[in-house]
Amino acid sequence: MAMSSTTGTTDVAADETGSLIAASKVEGTTVYNRQGDNLGHVYDVMIDKRSGQVAYAIMSFGGFLGMGERYHPLPWKILDYDTSMGGYVVDLDKDRLEGAPAYSSSERPDWRDRDYTHRIDNFYGVTPYTGWI
Amino acid sequence: MAMSSTTGTTDVAADETGSLIAASKVEGTTVYNRQGDNLGHVYDVMIDKRSGQVAYAIMSFGGFLGMGERYHPLPWKILDYDTSMGGYVVDLDKDRLEGAPAYSSSERPDWRDRDYTHRIDNFYGVTPYTGWI
Repeated sequence: MAMSSTTGTTDVAADETGSLIAASKVEGTTVYNRQGDNLGHVYDVMIDKRSGQVAYAIMSFGGFLGMGERYHPLPWKILDYDTSMGGYVVDLDKDRLEGAPAYSSSERPDWRDRDYTHRIDNFYGVTPYTGWI
Repeated sequence: MAMSSTTGTTDVAADETGSLIAASKVEGTTVYNRQGDNLGHVYDVMIDKRSGQVAYAIMSFGGFLGMGERYHPLPWKILDYDTSMGGYVVDLDKDRLEGAPAYSSSERPDWRDRDYTHRIDNFYGVTPYTGWI
């Protein structure tokens, strides 16, 4: 078994080698658009329980002193990691962002609502998520 | 769009409706074996960057006052949520746990090492993870 020894490492699972990345490392990653605007960061990811497929990354955007935060579900496949930017890049200029599916901290999406998830998928131009079918 | 309104919610993405569950909700979930022993809890999950597929859940086991913790990669598909137990249940009696692939906090797996990931998959009797092929 190939292992690297790291003394004093406290965060073993927050790791990334090869194709695998820890969810804890994805969380907190900055999200930029192609214009280089900082749109926010990944707050969490939504996983399909049966298949183990990540359906959406939840991007946290805006807000000040804990208020006014908005959460944007982003299909996993649109996240493009850019090493020079040090974050994900998505096709989402600031005007388009305003119209993107989002919810506030006092709301909670019903992920069983296929009209909602299809709206997200269609907005970002990806094949509708059908993991639960 | 079906939304439920929740006043004073601070943890919007730590949610679970239908088939989707937030990674932040998976993390911290207790893992039991079929004998009802508390084996530990999910510490993190490893996601395949290309496919968005969760390959392994990392279970944190043992340890005392922050020392001696061991991390067990568990294939996602063996995690069975049991509502009566309030956690995942896996086929892993305590004797078998001792021989299960694991690493300590001073080690870090190389997830590119297919011998290692195949060892995990074979130990738990699942089809070897080939997400990166």
